[in-house]
Order: sequence, then C-alpha cells, then structure tokens
Amino acid sequence: MLDVIIIGMGIGGITAGIYAKRAGLNVLMFEKSAPGGILQNIDKITNYPGFEEVGGAQLATHLFNQVKKLNIPYKMEEVIDIELSDEKKIVITKNGRYETQNIIVATGRIPKYLGLDNEKDFLGRGISTCATCDGFLYKGEDIAVVGSGNSALQESLHLAKLASKVYLLHRGVEFKAEDALVEAVKNTPNIEIIGGVNIKKINEKDGKIESVLLDNEKVINVKGVFIYIGYRPNTDLFKKFDITNINGDIIVDENFETEIAGLYAIGDCAKKGVYQLVTAASDGAIAVSNIEKFSK
Amino acid sequence: MLDVIIIGMGIGGITAGIYAKRAGLNVLMFEKSAPGGILQNIDKITNYPGFEEVGGAQLATHLFNQVKKLNIPYKMEEVIDIELSDEKKIVITKNGRYETQNIIVATGRIPKYLGLDNEKDFLGRGISTCATCDGFLYKGEDIAVVGSGNSALQESLHLAKLASKVYLLHRGVEFKAEDALVEAVKNTPNIEIIGGVNIKKINEKDGKIESVLLDNEKVINVKGVFIYIGYRPNTDLFKKFDITNINGDIIVDENFETEIAGLYAIGDCAKKGVYQLVTAASDGAIAVSNIEKFSK
Repeated sequence: MLDVIIIGMGIGGITAGIYAKRAGLNVLMFEKSAPGGILQNIDKITNYPGFEEVGGAQLATHLFNQVKKLNIPYKMEEVIDIELSDEKKIVITKNGRYETQNIIVATGRIPKYLGLDNEKDFLGRGISTCATCDGFLYKGEDIAVVGSGNSALQESLHLAKLASKVYLLHRGVEFKAEDALVEAVKNTPNIEIIGGVNIKKINEKDGKIESVLLDNEKVINVKGVFIYIGYRPNTDLFKKFDITNINGDIIVDENFETEIAGLYAIGDCAKKGVYQLVTAASDGAIAVSNIEKFSK
Repeated sequence: MLDVIIIGMGIGGITAGIYAKRAGLNVLMFEKSAPGGILQNIDKITNYPGFEEVGGAQLATHLFNQVKKLNIPYKMEEVIDIELSDEKKIVITKNGRYETQNIIVATGRIPKYLGLDNEKDFLGRGISTCATCDGFLYKGEDIAVVGSGNSALQESLHLAKLASKVYLLHRGVEFKAEDALVEAVKNTPNIEIIGGVNIKKINEKDGKIESVLLDNEKVINVKGVFIYIGYRPNTDLFKKFDITNINGDIIVDENFETEIAGLYAIGDCAKKGVYQLVTAASDGAIAVSNIEKFSK
C-alpha cells in the first residue's frame, strides 16, 4: 500500500510530491493532461518568488524536471473514482486501482464555459480557454474574448499581438480588473470593447466557427472565441463525500486535511484565504508534513 | 505615512514586498546585511518548487533581482527599535524614523553560538556559522565543525572538499540527522568524528585561532571553527510587546497577524507548523493579502 497518492500535478501537487519523496514516503502522483495545471494557461508570471519573470509553461517545465530529477513516481492517468474505507483509500483510473493510506487532492480549478449548445464541440477547434496554448492558431484572424476580469484583459492584450482584431465582449458596464490592464486594453487599437452583451449563439460553417450572435442581435464575424469568465474548483469526484461547500471548494483545516482523516486538499481546489502559486506550493509542503507526522 | 514596512529581506520578506508592491501598497523593506537571509547560509536547495537545484546565494540573487525589477523600495539599514501607538507604528534605524500603518516582521532566525568568552571576537576571523561564505578561507587547513544535525553534517561534507581535515565535534552519542548524511560523513576519509565532547576554550595566538580545548582536556589544532548548533528566532526587538513565546517565536494568527493589529510576523521568526522556504514565501503573500483587505 502507498503512503500517499497525489491527484493533480500543478504546483501544489508537485510540491507535495517533492516533500513526500524527500521525506521517504511511498508516493505516487497522477495527472490527466499536462503537468503544471493552471500554469499552462498563464502567459507571464512575475509574482512567483525566485523568478523575475517566467512563462507559465516554462515554470511547469521546471517543476516537471524537478519531479524527474528527484525520481518522484507519477502516472499520466485520469482519476475517475475514489473509494474510501477505514483501512485504506483506493484511487481508480482507467488503468488500475491504487491503494493508499493518504490522498492529497490537488486538482485545481477548471475554466467555466458559457453554457451554449455547441460550445463543447468546438473546444480546441475555435473555442479556447487558453490564449497561450491556442493564440497562434488565430494569427491575422478576427477573434472574440469573453470576460471582464484580469484574465480576460491580460489575454486580450496577448491575443491582440497575434490576431488582426480582438472583440472584447463583457456583459457588464465596467471591467473587474486592475486599472493598469483596463488602461492598456483601451489603448490597444485592434481591441474593440463591447460591453453589456452576452453571446447567444455560435454560428458554424463546415465545422468551423464563422461568427457569434450577441443577445443584442448583432452578429460578429470571428474565427475563434476565448472564454475567460472564471474558474470553478475541479472537485466533482469528491462531492459524494460531503466535504465540499456550495461553491465546490473542499473544506480543510489548517493542515489542509478534510474531515476524513488522511484525505487532504491543497491549492485552488481547497477552501482557503489566498489563492496564489506560492500559497498552493506551501499548502503541499504543509499537508505532507502533517502526513509525515502520523506515518512515523 | 507608509502602508507597510517589511523588516528583513529573506524569502518571506521579499515575497511580502513583491505582493505589497503589486497591490499598489506604499511599501518599504529593510535589511541589515545581505538580501536572502538564511539563504546565504545554504549550500544547495533541491526542495524549492521551480528549481531542480539552486545554490542558496543564487536564489537570494534571483529574489533580489526581482525586487529591483519590480522597483520595490528598500533600504540597507538595521532596524534598532520599534515604537507603537494607536495611530501609527514607527520603525527606527540609525539613519531615521519611518512611520507606517503596518509592519511585517520577517527577521528570520540567527545562529546560536557556543557561549565561550572570546567566541564573538573571532566571528568572521576563525569562527563562522556559514561554510558557504567562509569555507574558502580554510583551503588546505585543519578545521572543526560543531553540531550534530543536518546542517552540521551537510556543511562538514562541503568543508571536507576544501579543508585538509575536518573534526566533526558533537556532544551527544548519535547524530540527529538524515541517515544519508550520517553515512556520507562516515565515509569521508578526511572527516574525523568526535562524539561526547564540548569545546571548553578557544586558544588564540597573535589574534588568530590556533586550537580548541575540549572538555575531555584534549587539544585539537584547528585554524577555524564552524558552529552549527541550531538557530533562534531573531525577535529580541519585539519582546517588549509581549508577543513572543518562551522560545522567542512571535505568536500569530492564521493571517500571520499578532495580537497587535497591523503587526505581522512571517517565516522563521513566527510560531507556526512548518518552517520551509516555500512556506515562508507563502506567509508573506498571505500577510499582505490581509493588509490589503483592511487598507481598502
């Protein structure tokens, strides 16, 4: 039986892995897509201590290299279910069942979508939640960005360097973003801000996005739509254990342990005060330190 | 009046500075010696997320570059006193008095010394607590290391590469260090382990260390003594406010605020569960986030 399974290889999960490995715990990490989690969606980071400026994908690579250097066991498998009993916890993927004493949930957050009929069909083929990943696909094209927060504005600025024109659509009157970003967006000639609107329909032609219909009945011709309307905790698997709040955040104590002994949640999927890269990393170190205490 | 003064530019203080600056707070940092704090005493770091392996001094340089890149105001002045009133807090250095709404104490820990008469006279000239800083001064010489923990052993290994011979002196019978380090020390030919002893006297000649007298009356000829017998929180300035415990740690709540509103303590000088680089950094982000909440 393993000492600890870590679900999710974002900065929180990987830090937990580093500490678990160095503490001599028998650890296994799972990740369903690319190591780094939300980092893969971040263009530029200047507030992570130790890096003057680093790309999100670049920091993800550094973290993954650290995993490999320290020989921390990991599997690129999606966790599809969890079973809990008094004696052990079982993590289930498509490939197997893994028994462990402790689980650290580090599944982070996932982007919210607009809720339109054909939206998911176009994921990765016209609809995106990651300008850094997909922006280059729209070089010289017209695109739309949806959202009013820091991410929407930051990514609009990034996309405006690639796309011919960026329509920045938001439903409110004012942005909910830093002043500096609002200024920058307003001063970028090829960003057109359209407030007070929602996308009503995505129009396609031959399997590609052709335009979007707004709820003011206007049609905007765009080849791509980038959605930045927020995130929700990626915790659906854990709802059955009654450890999430109404928002989906997993409730934890000061050691990031849930009410269920040996089940921990760290980083963006946990209910806590501050959601930053450095706090997620710290959560991982603290959770493992607590597991270590009980495993000796 | 400033929004926040940060005392100490280790990784906790600098991270607080980064977050304060980016939050638009009027911030000033103080450091009495080299930025990086305890980092300057660490040879090699492999558990800080984002760096496969980094020297302590190197990480300190990265952090300081980040301070400069973000134009975070700082002064290389030693804080010698603090005055508190209901309306403001005053930080006093030899050069001036600085008024602020909030203080973040990030003064870290300082090495413990042996308590011998002439010990402090030889600081930097025969007595050291930093193998990385001073090791090169003893190339080809015989030296002593005092201590039984991870630091003592790690630094003995480092010094054994420079010095002709390293006497590793400890007062107990067994080391209190990781097995791997104990093994490595035992397998290094030019490290001689002497257990069950204390240094009774440091013998000098012409202002230089010549030998040490042990409490078993043996004399060992060494040119330098490296002391690794632990650390204590660097909090003497704050004892008068009755916010420290018997160990000298500053007592804080979950936001790293003391009983005195607007007075915070983070990192190694605070009473908390886990003392790591990444947790100190996270503390800084959390303390500033709390200050931000109240300053709006």
